[in-house]
Amino acid sequence: MAQKPSIPKGTRDFNPEQVAKRHYIFNTIRGAFETFGFQPIETPSFENSDTLMGKYGEEGDRLIFKILNSGDYLSKANSEAYDSKNSNKLTPSISEKALRYDLTVPFARYVVQHQNEIEFPFKRYQIQPVWRADRPQKGRFREFFQCDADVVGSQSLWQEVEFIQLYDTVFSALKLEGVTIKINNRKILSGIAEVIGASDKLIDFTVALDKLDKIGEEKVKEEMLGKGISEEGIAKLQPLFTLSGSFESQIDSLKTILSASEEGQKGIEELAFINTAISELGLKTAALQLDVTLARGLNYYTGAIFEVSAPKDVKMGSIGGGGRYDDLTGIFGMKNVSGVGISFGLDRIFLVLEELDLFPETVNKNVEVLFINFGEKEALFSLKAINELRSQGINSELYPDTAKMKKQMNHANKRAIPFVVLVGDQEIESNTYTLKNMATGEQHKVPLKELISLVK
Amino acid sequence: MAQKPSIPKGTRDFNPEQVAKRHYIFNTIRGAFETFGFQPIETPSFENSDTLMGKYGEEGDRLIFKILNSGDYLSKANSEAYDSKNSNKLTPSISEKALRYDLTVPFARYVVQHQNEIEFPFKRYQIQPVWRADRPQKGRFREFFQCDADVVGSQSLWQEVEFIQLYDTVFSALKLEGVTIKINNRKILSGIAEVIGASDKLIDFTVALDKLDKIGEEKVKEEMLGKGISEEGIAKLQPLFTLSGSFESQIDSLKTILSASEEGQKGIEELAFINTAISELGLKTAALQLDVTLARGLNYYTGAIFEVSAPKDVKMGSIGGGGRYDDLTGIFGMKNVSGVGISFGLDRIFLVLEELDLFPETVNKNVEVLFINFGEKEALFSLKAINELRSQGINSELYPDTAKMKKQMNHANKRAIPFVVLVGDQEIESNTYTLKNMATGEQHKVPLKELISLVK
Repeated sequence: MAQKPSIPKGTRDFNPEQVAKRHYIFNTIRGAFETFGFQPIETPSFENSDTLMGKYGEEGDRLIFKILNSGDYLSKANSEAYDSKNSNKLTPSISEKALRYDLTVPFARYVVQHQNEIEFPFKRYQIQPVWRADRPQKGRFREFFQCDADVVGSQSLWQEVEFIQLYDTVFSALKLEGVTIKINNRKILSGIAEVIGASDKLIDFTVALDKLDKIGEEKVKEEMLGKGISEEGIAKLQPLFTLSGSFESQIDSLKTILSASEEGQKGIEELAFINTAISELGLKTAALQLDVTLARGLNYYTGAIFEVSAPKDVKMGSIGGGGRYDDLTGIFGMKNVSGVGISFGLDRIFLVLEELDLFPETVNKNVEVLFINFGEKEALFSLKAINELRSQGINSELYPDTAKMKKQMNHANKRAIPFVVLVGDQEIESNTYTLKNMATGEQHKVPLKELISLVK
Repeated sequence: MAQKPSIPKGTRDFNPEQVAKRHYIFNTIRGAFETFGFQPIETPSFENSDTLMGKYGEEGDRLIFKILNSGDYLSKANSEAYDSKNSNKLTPSISEKALRYDLTVPFARYVVQHQNEIEFPFKRYQIQPVWRADRPQKGRFREFFQCDADVVGSQSLWQEVEFIQLYDTVFSALKLEGVTIKINNRKILSGIAEVIGASDKLIDFTVALDKLDKIGEEKVKEEMLGKGISEEGIAKLQPLFTLSGSFESQIDSLKTILSASEEGQKGIEELAFINTAISELGLKTAALQLDVTLARGLNYYTGAIFEVSAPKDVKMGSIGGGGRYDDLTGIFGMKNVSGVGISFGLDRIFLVLEELDLFPETVNKNVEVLFINFGEKEALFSLKAINELRSQGINSELYPDTAKMKKQMNHANKRAIPFVVLVGDQEIESNTYTLKNMATGEQHKVPLKELISLVK
């Protein structure tokens, strides 16, 4: 029986134009990754559940898509959970596999599993879809691509320098000028917490500080007070709220604020190193900015924290982020593997390029030449030319049916094909082709060689 | 707690070399698809279960991976099935989504859902993974890529001609010369069944005939007898068993054998048209062969049937196949949409290219130049050169740590990086770089411009 077809909420079909634009972004990023020495890996769409579960917190566990075991899966169901109809408890006994939730945990698993084949430091990139059972909303999907580059096995700060250059290179190549690469350091945040006597409230403190942009100074202070940070401590924060100016002058202020914290000093040193190197090397179109309120997934990062924002005139959340983490692979039993990585927010980058009209006109690999089909003999004559055009990389095709000329021309118009070729008895006799430019209406009767150069 | 990490059976990790080789195949096929006027679409990894279920037969339904509903899924479980612990019956009530099993049904769903946006005839290609809960074995995986090109909305035989050219173009571009494109036509098989009085046993008949290569004439006859085809009918088949020679001479024999079948005559006409066109147009490296035993998914195909075999010296099943089907979208309520399509067997093509050593040497986008890291000042000087190399598309990197020279050189060796660059005080002073060719051991102290041209 006929069904009205649809797709699951939070998923998307991509039409040819959308695929072409997405691949343009992928290929630009891929190209930059490779010139920077990153190499691609790919991992399976689903992992054993125990590889993923427990790695993203309780909320994450809930959002992981689980795959039902095949066959008579109930025969192995946990009977206690079954009898009590407890979904959560039943799941592990009827589902052994789950869809990838991000690329980081599968990468950690990959590194540990293949550690003997890998030459460290290992620079890998990975561009693959991930799945999350999140409530779908504007710009948030249940299936979306992630795009990550990481280095594991080196603590060198040159990596941080290179990642800033990499962001700059990718966004410049995408012609998306004026992005801001914000940087902070976990050690700065720890240092501040230490100085104001709130080391034990680091998370509460950073969560509140992170809101400075949105809710303003007073509300941030209120929230901190509410979380039990002392008035005295908050008073010590005052210089932070007014921190501004160049990277260097902010560094200078931080030196004063954090003079009592060894960890804070270390953070300042790292930031200063990175900033000096970037100043020496220069950026193409991006700007580097120190932002001491930047926290992101703080528990995860141990050093640098990155976030990229779109040019100021575009309303959009961050289009990239990352940082350094000191123990990526510990969850799988391999200790002391330091890593640092960044990711690109593909869907948001797509929207920004769309809004600013930055996709190249040639992005859609459309057919360039359509040969009108007037009959068998003419079609065969046309296909010989089409063979030659294709071998020269010109996308071309024959209208498959001997339909009315008007219908065929309409087809070319609707598909925005720039050239059509007409072949009749005259053309076959004189071994020529009548080429029509659909934009100008101009027509030329030319031999094949000239046709090719006109189309090119 | 530490786990020993692994991946689900039937799935694979791909290391950088494998990813590079796979993408080389994808990109070659993608390029050919586009010059032939095919446009890419992408569909979600999972579909609503009712889009997929019932489309692949009972066996197929069993092999579809089902995704468990999120949250307290048992609260909506079918209570009858729950009480009787009937897995099959329970599934639809606790799982609404399922992983894509092939690209054909999602394509049909796409065409129906987007019919008002599509300009027909619609030539689409799609390269995406599919999932099957098959028993994993050598060369059979639970996650693998399919690679399909189809045209819907035209009954023209020029499409069949173009698909043969497309196969030829792709395999020639992959340097895989000597493949055989076998062709048959459903109408020929129906005609033969008709002539021998076994029209009602078409499937049994073709299943037996399909085995001619493997089990030989006598066993095929035995099987047909066993299935109730008369001795008299089988006797009429005799000329088929000895059918050989050129496409044209086989066509001539078929004309005699099928003289009494109108449908058979129609099939012959179609094959002859295709063969004449291909003879006129020529193929680059492939051969076209008529194979009346070729059946594939017979119930599915209504006209041409294709199958591609690897060059004779390679032991490998078919590396591609396809055909014409007359009612792709009927399952979703859109009638009379004729289609024809082909697919490429990616994993087998990979194995064949590997066996014949046909991957280009440059397929692996390895780092070409590694700069040895002697310290901060040297590293910064190196990064300025690296910036320039990268902007010229040369994959290059700085060793991140100031490790012992021997360790850094070993790293270059293990990764098979062809050039290293050494920068010390002397080089910085004279604004030069010492370039070492790792294969020959040759060293040159050169300015940046010369370094670039030497590496290129």
